[in-house]
Amino acid sequence: MNDRLKKQVEFMLELDKMKNLYRQTYVLHEDRKENDAEHSWHLAILAMLMAEHANKPVDAVKIIKMVLIHDVVEIDAGDTYCYDTEGCKTKADREEKAAQRIFGLLPDDQKKEFYDLWREFEDSETDDARFAAVLDRVQPLLLNYTKGGISWKKHGIAKEQVMGRNKEYFGESDEIADLIVSVIEDAYDKGWLK
Amino acid sequence: MNDRLKKQVEFMLELDKMKNLYRQTYVLHEDRKENDAEHSWHLAILAMLMAEHANKPVDAVKIIKMVLIHDVVEIDAGDTYCYDTEGCKTKADREEKAAQRIFGLLPDDQKKEFYDLWREFEDSETDDARFAAVLDRVQPLLLNYTKGGISWKKHGIAKEQVMGRNKEYFGESDEIADLIVSVIEDAYDKGWLK
Repeated sequence: MNDRLKKQVEFMLELDKMKNLYRQTYVLHEDRKENDAEHSWHLAILAMLMAEHANKPVDAVKIIKMVLIHDVVEIDAGDTYCYDTEGCKTKADREEKAAQRIFGLLPDDQKKEFYDLWREFEDSETDDARFAAVLDRVQPLLLNYTKGGISWKKHGIAKEQVMGRNKEYFGESDEIADLIVSVIEDAYDKGWLK
Repeated sequence: MNDRLKKQVEFMLELDKMKNLYRQTYVLHEDRKENDAEHSWHLAILAMLMAEHANKPVDAVKIIKMVLIHDVVEIDAGDTYCYDTEGCKTKADREEKAAQRIFGLLPDDQKKEFYDLWREFEDSETDDARFAAVLDRVQPLLLNYTKGGISWKKHGIAKEQVMGRNKEYFGESDEIADLIVSVIEDAYDKGWLK
């Protein structure tokens, strides 16, 4: 078999593990958590839909690619719940090693392309990466809210924690920031957030 | 809330149902079937990786978007197993109605963009749509093969059926056609296909 194609097949089979990495967010219509493959697909749809709401011009295509692969490192490094302060301390090291191994399955040029997309997302410094981070926050927020705050109630999350995690990105999109604030305020009023 | 954003949120929540639409293919590392959200994500990854193997020049970005939404109509129309000849007769009508309703949740310009992507995929006439169809076939083929032909054995599928479903697209990519033939031949030799 073509050597590049062989490496690509090996990579795609490895990535099947994303379907068994469960997050803290629940899917709307079954009693189970969402996995990383589903989450990444949902974010790519959001990027197609909502890039128009970015305050600064963003590259929607780069954002789509970025969100499709942003969680691949969790195959080795696991999911670190966003309010788990202990786990967050070792997250960067674990994820860098994972990126080297997993993207290292690809031909060199594609390893670089995928690694660079992931690194840009993680560093969260460019407008594209920061807008991708907005989507990565608003998607679970909307699912949690639509499902009656299930994950917030289970973990006893406070309004200030959710606001804190979101507000650092409010400058990326006025419309989405307004949406997030209204969802958080309403969840608080309903007693779903402390 | 911004009216466009409101419609986009409604659409993204509706699309959560993709996570509960189970296909005939199994995920590799759990004893369960793959759902449409996972499948669509996996195809988008394949489009990023394998568009380079197309015999004719293709628009990888369009293919990524196409595969992300190609199965959305199954929310209303259900999954029609590719070897179910009865179900295939009414598939087109059911899916057209579904496309009108689901993409109709979006602002008009995005409804048109998404509908057109879906229609192009379904018509399978352009080089982009035909390459997307190659990916839509090779992904379950690779999963089934890696999992010991589980879905083929369960449904008693014959080598000729799998070959027939794939060979109409062999002209889209010599490398992927070679891969598909070698997988089918080996599955047949192993007794996983009749």
